[in-house]
Amino acid sequence: MSRLFKFAQKFNSFYLSGFKASECKPFLVEGFQVGLVRPEVMKELLRYPEVFLVSSGYVELNPAFRDYEERSNHVDKVLRELRAENVFIALKGWREECYEVKTEFNSKSLLKMDRSATCLFGIRNYGVDINGYVRHPVMGLCLWFQKRSSTKQTWPGKWDNMVGGGLSVGHGILETAFKEAEEEASVPDHLLRNLCSAGCVSFFFESERGLFPNTEFVFDLELPADFVPENADGEVEAFELVPAHQCLEKILAEDFKTTSTPVALDFLIRHGVVTAENEQEYLKVIELLHVPLQSIYQKLVQTNTNDFIKENGNPLLFKNI
Amino acid sequence: MSRLFKFAQKFNSFYLSGFKASECKPFLVEGFQVGLVRPEVMKELLRYPEVFLVSSGYVELNPAFRDYEERSNHVDKVLRELRAENVFIALKGWREECYEVKTEFNSKSLLKMDRSATCLFGIRNYGVDINGYVRHPVMGLCLWFQKRSSTKQTWPGKWDNMVGGGLSVGHGILETAFKEAEEEASVPDHLLRNLCSAGCVSFFFESERGLFPNTEFVFDLELPADFVPENADGEVEAFELVPAHQCLEKILAEDFKTTSTPVALDFLIRHGVVTAENEQEYLKVIELLHVPLQSIYQKLVQTNTNDFIKENGNPLLFKNI
Repeated sequence: MSRLFKFAQKFNSFYLSGFKASECKPFLVEGFQVGLVRPEVMKELLRYPEVFLVSSGYVELNPAFRDYEERSNHVDKVLRELRAENVFIALKGWREECYEVKTEFNSKSLLKMDRSATCLFGIRNYGVDINGYVRHPVMGLCLWFQKRSSTKQTWPGKWDNMVGGGLSVGHGILETAFKEAEEEASVPDHLLRNLCSAGCVSFFFESERGLFPNTEFVFDLELPADFVPENADGEVEAFELVPAHQCLEKILAEDFKTTSTPVALDFLIRHGVVTAENEQEYLKVIELLHVPLQSIYQKLVQTNTNDFIKENGNPLLFKNI
Repeated sequence: MSRLFKFAQKFNSFYLSGFKASECKPFLVEGFQVGLVRPEVMKELLRYPEVFLVSSGYVELNPAFRDYEERSNHVDKVLRELRAENVFIALKGWREECYEVKTEFNSKSLLKMDRSATCLFGIRNYGVDINGYVRHPVMGLCLWFQKRSSTKQTWPGKWDNMVGGGLSVGHGILETAFKEAEEEASVPDHLLRNLCSAGCVSFFFESERGLFPNTEFVFDLELPADFVPENADGEVEAFELVPAHQCLEKILAEDFKTTSTPVALDFLIRHGVVTAENEQEYLKVIELLHVPLQSIYQKLVQTNTNDFIKENGNPLLFKNI
């Protein structure tokens, strides 16, 4: 097995586990599956029967909650209690910054949740990443990387893509890209005009913190050879310009943030650095940069018998998803 | 539903049908699933019990055949008979050019089969496509398209990507790209040096001819504004240079080859023409450009009881794939 394919399996550890069908239960809000809950989370949620209905088949947010505000408030209250009790590592990274919980990227949000908690519920989350690159007169194609500050709540001190950020409540994709490029790397406006949308990557990672079905909107940004990024928000410790042919070593190393590798890898594939000629498992690696996160949580409808069935009329068999 | 998403569903008509689980049966060679067989094909194969073992659960190539040559020869003989009888539309396009039948792209080939016949067995096939583009001083980013000759066996007279070809027996990916670029568009060597590997697209289309689980190796080729492609092999009727902002209309039109749209669409996404800002179903469209063809046909192992089970030990339940 190629080293790259092995790594692509690593950042898809949950996807390739078959979603641990027998252990994890679908998380339902308003009859829609929006996530997955691991047994240790379920155990804690059982203590809040007025908020979470835990059955043998699924975990459901109390359908009596009427709207976005009510759902968000009830969940927030539980999460703050669990955080105070220090039950989950994930909540140690509490951010006071929320992600939306939606059935689809473009659908109306059902509730919001602190971004540190979404991995406890397997909520799909979305981010924005910028590949800052240079066509250097001497070094050829190069990529900029940042070293995350050692005080960051997640992945402190690890190397990362030049610019990246989660898509939090109230912020658009391009807006987030511009904001992060300014805060993290001080990219001036006239250079940001070259920002080029270049697709997305999707993968499903699992760590001790929880489940990460992540989709990153990918942007490429060509920068002049004399531009040097400078951090403005204290979240970056250093920047480094790496020649394309050395990038694979960089992003597969232990000190690179595992969940940031897909974005850089996708860049190296799109720009002809990683090819079918030099990577034996080229097709499988590309497949693992685009796992079908948009369709894994299927729409469920509540029947008269109060059971949940898939919209196509088949009974809810999670292991078939 | 957006027009683009609707189209992405069209070129994934089979993928989104749930693989017609109740109708189609896995096609097994040497204990590996390498394809899928539709009922009307199964019906004909029943007439050749010395070559194809058709059971209620699957269609198997006679495991008594010892090697690549023997398997290829037996299948070829059946196909030539069926072709002579005019049983299948697909075989009207007989090419005397074979595709390999493999369990994985990189694995040893189990047999070869005329490329016109692979769709009858749902064999994964692989092609190479070149997006010839120009950064035009007046028109901006533009893409070259070819109009297929009206005498082509498949999709005659339809518009298509500038250069494309199937990966047939004995030919490599880059070799095919170079060969087709010369034959179809007379791209000179010094321009071909700019050929840049840019990933792949995978989709699963179904037509009256059969099943098409297709993976295309994608290349971008920047061309000077004064280069005009010229056909050299009689397979192309015309070429047209289309500004990027008009390409979507071009590739979604009735007169564009449906199975060539994914390659051009992927180009428009990677080059920031189709973006999350102008395409509502951006993520779902990208997902449908990368359906998991490399993992849909799972490895089967034959048990002592002569039944086939999945390698993980679960019984072979095709609908779960």
